Amino acid sequence: MSFERLVEDIRKKQNPTVAGLDPKLDYIPDYIKDIAFDRYGRTLDGAAEALFQFNKGLIDSLCDIVPAVKPQAAYYEMYGWQGVRTLERTIAYAKEKGMFVITDGKRNDIGATMQAYAAAHLGVTDVAGESVAAFGADALTVNGYLGTDGIKPLLEICKADDKGIFVLVKTSNPSSGELQDRILDDGKTVYRTMGNMCEQWGSIDVGESGYSCVGAVVGATYSAQLGELRGALPHTFFLVPGYGAQGGGAADVAPAFDKMGRGAIINSSRGIMCAWKKEGCAPEEYADAARREAIRMRNEIMGFIGEII
Amino acid sequence: MSFERLVEDIRKKQNPTVAGLDPKLDYIPDYIKDIAFDRYGRTLDGAAEALFQFNKGLIDSLCDIVPAVKPQAAYYEMYGWQGVRTLERTIAYAKEKGMFVITDGKRNDIGATMQAYAAAHLGVTDVAGESVAAFGADALTVNGYLGTDGIKPLLEICKADDKGIFVLVKTSNPSSGELQDRILDDGKTVYRTMGNMCEQWGSIDVGESGYSCVGAVVGATYSAQLGELRGALPHTFFLVPGYGAQGGGAADVAPAFDKMGRGAIINSSRGIMCAWKKEGCAPEEYADAARREAIRMRNEIMGFIGEII
Repeated sequence: MSFERLVEDIRKKQNPTVAGLDPKLDYIPDYIKDIAFDRYGRTLDGAAEALFQFNKGLIDSLCDIVPAVKPQAAYYEMYGWQGVRTLERTIAYAKEKGMFVITDGKRNDIGATMQAYAAAHLGVTDVAGESVAAFGADALTVNGYLGTDGIKPLLEICKADDKGIFVLVKTSNPSSGELQDRILDDGKTVYRTMGNMCEQWGSIDVGESGYSCVGAVVGATYSAQLGELRGALPHTFFLVPGYGAQGGGAADVAPAFDKMGRGAIINSSRGIMCAWKKEGCAPEEYADAARREAIRMRNEIMGFIGEII
Repeated sequence: MSFERLVEDIRKKQNPTVAGLDPKLDYIPDYIKDIAFDRYGRTLDGAAEALFQFNKGLIDSLCDIVPAVKPQAAYYEMYGWQGVRTLERTIAYAKEKGMFVITDGKRNDIGATMQAYAAAHLGVTDVAGESVAAFGADALTVNGYLGTDGIKPLLEICKADDKGIFVLVKTSNPSSGELQDRILDDGKTVYRTMGNMCEQWGSIDVGESGYSCVGAVVGATYSAQLGELRGALPHTFFLVPGYGAQGGGAADVAPAFDKMGRGAIINSSRGIMCAWKKEGCAPEEYADAARREAIRMRNEIMGFIGEII
């Protein structure tokens, strides 16, 4: 039900973080790319193979200490359908290794079309009587600009199949305030209004932890709003991007957590993927460097929240 | 520059409509599915092949009279990476036949990630020195909830490579008003505010027709708002969904056009794809039925706007 599996694994690992898998070719050590390009040429097939091998190494290195991965769809689509095949393979591999998978797609559309997205990313597709999981993630990020009927098809799958969604509320980017910080005629901001919609949408499926199947994306770069929203949205689990490369630190994300140390998962993408570059270690050690950075990040954040109960 | 190619082809064909390609298996005649499933089984490969053959027939039947197609990404993702490969093949085939291709993906993210989406859908991807077009559409629908820095990477590609975007302003679905109709503290609605942002973003690249590279999605189901926005946003070209199956008629979409009969393109998806079912004709005639419906729709809309100058 809802995010219970994730909440429980965060507690077990005492680690409320998620590794973003946004694998640009630039981030991948040459020795991985050389093998892929030798086999498939400097093509989308070659790039997609390099992406998968890079991800596989990261997942192997992180799966016993990090509860979740968040592949960002854009970085796979960029490499064509071949890249999208790597997204599917990455999701399957991470799940096989016991990780919770959040596909970061920020999908949104009218109800009929959201049914298709829900089937694609969280549910199953009917192929002439056969049920096939197209991508089969555990959770999907979505954009709520279209209102309730664009969210409803997802809620049905979340409830029936133990999945979750994260709705964009207050995003981590510099210009997020242009619309999201605007004040509506009832005195509330747009982001707070979207947050309240999350609480309402999630009320159909609140788990034992107190959190529902409808989470919210709130950026680490807006610490005050994180605190405000944590107080206002007691059943809404937060996915917090913007830690590390985008400028958010552990002190900034601390307000995302409740008194039990629950209620949020903090994402780092470039920080983990590119740790080998920052360290200046041998490229062959990229996965070990990612693990070292993941541990450093966990310890830094746990230093602020103590124990997760 | 901007939407000039599309505006010119609409004028040449005297047809301001776009055929939505949202090919669910249910819409596809059995004889097409039988061939695909015989060859690939009842699998995502089989489904994806049936989708492509269905689309190919529609494109062949429509390309001399309809200026554009709009494949909806969700209906391809639903059939896995194999479906996404069919999206790529469909875009390539439609372009080969001279049609303008709008990928309806409603993509949105922070700036760095939007660069990846822009490369994926409109531009090219660098693969170790080789430039490869991953999907290569002419235009992409996007969601502006994240503000300017999520739009900027697209503008650069639009200007450099003669592409366009359509930003969600007032969507066609019943609950679109929950956020979009709310009034901000300056007395303007959220959708009008988003529309004004489109005017501003587009000001970097206004074509000879007077329209910029930044269009807006405004639903046929909200006729009054279409008229309001046409008046308020003189440089913003409209993509208008919601005609036909969703309930919008020709009278409803008439306010989307300017005095020259320009400024908008009206989408029909199910109406065209499923015309063979509605007509009750032989399944083998599905493409002819689609053409008959496309002509009927064109005539109905042109009856309201007269001539496109």
